[in-house]
Amino acid sequence: MWLSVVVLVHVLLLISNSVESQSIIDTLPGFPGKLPFKLETGYIGVGELDEVQLFYYFIESERNPKDDPLVLWLTGGPGCSGLSGLLFEIGPFTFDYANSSGNKPMLELNPYSWTKIANMIFLDAPVGTGFSYATTWEAYNSNDTSSTTQTYEFLRKWLIPHFSSIHSMLPAILILGKPSQSLFKKFQTGFVIGNPLTYEIWDGNERVKFAHRTALISDRLYQSTKRNCQGRYIDPDPNNMQCVEDLRKVNECLDDIYAAQILEPNCAAFSPKPNKLWSLSLHLDDNFIDILHSAPDQVPEPWCRSYNYLYSYVWANDKTVQKALHVREGTKTDWERCNKSLTYTKNVITSIDYHQNLTKKDLRALVYSGDHDMLIPYVGTQQWIETLDLSIKDDWRPWFVEGQIAGYVTIFTEEKYSLTFTTIKGAGHTAPEYKPKECLAMIDRWFAYYFL
Amino acid sequence: MWLSVVVLVHVLLLISNSVESQSIIDTLPGFPGKLPFKLETGYIGVGELDEVQLFYYFIESERNPKDDPLVLWLTGGPGCSGLSGLLFEIGPFTFDYANSSGNKPMLELNPYSWTKIANMIFLDAPVGTGFSYATTWEAYNSNDTSSTTQTYEFLRKWLIPHFSSIHSMLPAILILGKPSQSLFKKFQTGFVIGNPLTYEIWDGNERVKFAHRTALISDRLYQSTKRNCQGRYIDPDPNNMQCVEDLRKVNECLDDIYAAQILEPNCAAFSPKPNKLWSLSLHLDDNFIDILHSAPDQVPEPWCRSYNYLYSYVWANDKTVQKALHVREGTKTDWERCNKSLTYTKNVITSIDYHQNLTKKDLRALVYSGDHDMLIPYVGTQQWIETLDLSIKDDWRPWFVEGQIAGYVTIFTEEKYSLTFTTIKGAGHTAPEYKPKECLAMIDRWFAYYFL
Repeated sequence: MWLSVVVLVHVLLLISNSVESQSIIDTLPGFPGKLPFKLETGYIGVGELDEVQLFYYFIESERNPKDDPLVLWLTGGPGCSGLSGLLFEIGPFTFDYANSSGNKPMLELNPYSWTKIANMIFLDAPVGTGFSYATTWEAYNSNDTSSTTQTYEFLRKWLIPHFSSIHSMLPAILILGKPSQSLFKKFQTGFVIGNPLTYEIWDGNERVKFAHRTALISDRLYQSTKRNCQGRYIDPDPNNMQCVEDLRKVNECLDDIYAAQILEPNCAAFSPKPNKLWSLSLHLDDNFIDILHSAPDQVPEPWCRSYNYLYSYVWANDKTVQKALHVREGTKTDWERCNKSLTYTKNVITSIDYHQNLTKKDLRALVYSGDHDMLIPYVGTQQWIETLDLSIKDDWRPWFVEGQIAGYVTIFTEEKYSLTFTTIKGAGHTAPEYKPKECLAMIDRWFAYYFL
Repeated sequence: MWLSVVVLVHVLLLISNSVESQSIIDTLPGFPGKLPFKLETGYIGVGELDEVQLFYYFIESERNPKDDPLVLWLTGGPGCSGLSGLLFEIGPFTFDYANSSGNKPMLELNPYSWTKIANMIFLDAPVGTGFSYATTWEAYNSNDTSSTTQTYEFLRKWLIPHFSSIHSMLPAILILGKPSQSLFKKFQTGFVIGNPLTYEIWDGNERVKFAHRTALISDRLYQSTKRNCQGRYIDPDPNNMQCVEDLRKVNECLDDIYAAQILEPNCAAFSPKPNKLWSLSLHLDDNFIDILHSAPDQVPEPWCRSYNYLYSYVWANDKTVQKALHVREGTKTDWERCNKSLTYTKNVITSIDYHQNLTKKDLRALVYSGDHDMLIPYVGTQQWIETLDLSIKDDWRPWFVEGQIAGYVTIFTEEKYSLTFTTIKGAGHTAPEYKPKECLAMIDRWFAYYFL
C-alpha cells in the first residue's frame, strides 16, 4: 500500500527544487521546561512557484517513530488551523486552566495525545488557514480541488527529507470537511474521518432527525415538518408556507443550542445569534473574539467550550509564541482558529462519489461520530455510508474502554476494502476534544488492526 | 383547595391520641458548625394501633416559612429513603468530596436546595423504608393502597402541631414510583412527579424507543425488534424466536449502560450484572455495597455516581449519625438507600386512571423528565400524558436558566386543570441530582405560577 506513495515521492525528488524551512522546537511559551517530545515546524512551498507557503507542525511518535504510523491531520472547516488539533483534540497539549489567565494561557500535556502512538503532521491548509500564507494575492484563491492538489504536493515534499527517519508509515488522513475527502483517492493505505461533512444537503437535513431523537424538538413538530417540507429542510421552497412555519418553530427550539455538543452551554448567546441550524459553517463558536474585545478581563459564566478557543487565540497571536514556532514575521496579521475570510470556492458538492470509488480499493477506512454533535450528526453519516451498499461484517455492537461503553461500532467490508463506523458516546463534533481517552483507545486499536 | 385538607385535619385532631416524637437538630456529624436552617426529625405512628412508625425529616424554608409552600417529598422506589432527597437530589446537603474519605463522609451545603424556597418534608415511606419500622411483623406487609393510606395519615397527623407555623401551604407530592401517584386523588392542590413510573408495561417498552433515539441500538435492530416483537418487549412471547433473538441483541447493546443516565459510567460493572433493561427496579446502583464490602479503602476508577450512594450508606449507618438524627435505637439493623427486601405487594397496575380522574379537578400538575434517563424514559411519560387527551396551551418550547436551554416545556390544560410537562436537558433519572440549578429554577417558577 505504502510503496505506491513512496515511489511517487522518489520520482518527485528529482524534479523538486523548492526551498523549504524546518525548525526543531525545544521550548514553548506557556509550557514549563523542555518539550518531552520532538516538535518540528516549518513551511513547504506548493504551487508552480511555491507561491503558497503551507505551515505545518510535526510531532514524532513518543513510542517508536520508526514503527509507528504517520498521520497527516487536517482540521477541516475549511479554514481551521492545524493548531486546533494540537491544542484541543488529539495533540500533545491542553490548556492548564488552574494556572492560566485570560492574558497568559498556560499549556500542559494531554495524556491522551495521539502522538503517544503515532507520528503526526498537523497542517495549516488550505492557503490562508492558520499560519499558511501566499506570496501573491491571486494565490490566496483556492477551491476544493486546488487545495487537495496542494495538500498532496505538501505531503510528497515533506516526505523527502523525513523518509529516512520514518520507515513503517501508514498515512491516515483526518479531516472534518468535505473537500479534503477527495484527497483519499490519491492514497492506497487508510484514512480516518470524524463527524465529516460529506454531502451538505444530507448532513444538514439530518439535523432535524437528530434534533428529534435527542428531545430538542417534539414528535408533533418533527412529523409535521417531515410531512410539510417533504424532507427538504435545507433551502426549502419559500412559497411552501406550512414548511416555512414548521422550520421557524424548529429553529426556535434549536437557536440557543450549542450545536457542536448539544448538552454543553452555548457561548454564542453572548453575541448576536447567527441562524445556526442551517448554517453549515463550523466557525460559529468563534464569537468569543467579540467577548474578548468587549470584556478582556472577565470570563462570563457558565464555562463554555469556546474559552479554550479564546485561549488559543491569545496564545497563537502572542509575538513570542510566533517567534518560538518560527512563524515568518509579517506573513499574517491575525491567527484565527478558523479563518472566516478565506477566498475559497466550494466546487465539490459531495464526496460520496469518492467514497464509492474507494470501496473498490484495498483500503481501510475509519469513520467516527461523536453522537451528541448536531453540526454533522451521526444519522447523516450513517445515511451516506448506507448508500455505499457494503456488506456488514460486524453489526452495531458496543465497544469498551476501561469497562465502560465508549461507543457502538459497525464494520462494513467489500472485497479488500473495509470501513469501520463507530459512534463515540457522549462526544461532540470534534470527538477527541470531548472523549480523549476513548478516542486514543479507538485509534490505537484501529492502527494495530485490533478488534475495536 | 387547601382548606379541604385543613378541615380534615381539625376533625382528626379530636380523635387522634397517638404519641408522636419530634426533635430539632442543630448539628450533624460530618457537617462543620451549626446547621444554617431548621431541621426537625421524628416518627409518626400510623395504622390502627400506630404499629407503623414513619420517620421523617422536616426542613423549614430558608426564605419565608409562613408564605412558602409545603412540599411532601416521597423518594419512590418503592423503598427508597427520604434521606436520598436530602443528600443527592433537592435537599440542603451534598457530599463534600474534597474533604471526605470512605470511612468519614463530610457534608456541605447544596446551593440549589429546594429548602431555599419551600418547607420540605422528606418521608421514609412505605414502612420498612429508611428509618421507618413497624412494631409487629404483620405490619411490615404493605401494598400500593395501604401505603398510600398510611402516607396520607402521616400527613394529617404531622400537620396538626405544625399548622400554626406554616400558613400558606401548597402541598406538592413528589414521587418517583407509581403507587404513590394514587395519593394525588386525595389532594386538591398540586403535585410534581419526576421521571415517574406510571405504567410498567409502557414505561418499560419505551426503553427500546429511547435506546434507539439515543444511538444505543441501531436503526436496523430497532426496526427489526419493533416488527418481530410487535411492540411487546416486556414479557414477550417466548415462542417468538425472532423477537427473543432481537431482544437478546438489544440487551447486549444496553447491558453495560448506566440506565439512570446513559452517558455516565456504570459502576454495576464491578458486580455481577442483573438484566437491567427489563428490570423495573430502581435499586440497581446499590451494588456499591458489594464494592464496599470487597474493597473498603479503595474507590475504583472511574468516578461513578453510586459513590455518592456509598457515602450515604456509610454516613447513615454511623451510630453517632443515627443518634444525632434521633433514630430510635434497635429499630433498624441496617439503613439502606433503597430497601430491596420490603414485604410489599404491587396492587396498582397503572396510575394512568388516577391521572385521568385528576384532570377533572382544579389542580396543577408538574411532570418533569431528565431526558437522558433510560429507566423511565421521557418518551414513555409523554405517551401516557398524550392519552389524557388534554388541550395544548403552550407547545414544546425551550425554557432557559442563565441564558442556556434547560429543557423543553409543553403546557396542557382542561378547564381548571393544568399539566406542565418538561424535559430537563442532559439530566438522568433523578433529575435534580444531575441538574440542580435548572431544577431549582423550574420548581421556583412553577410554585410562583411563573412562566417556565
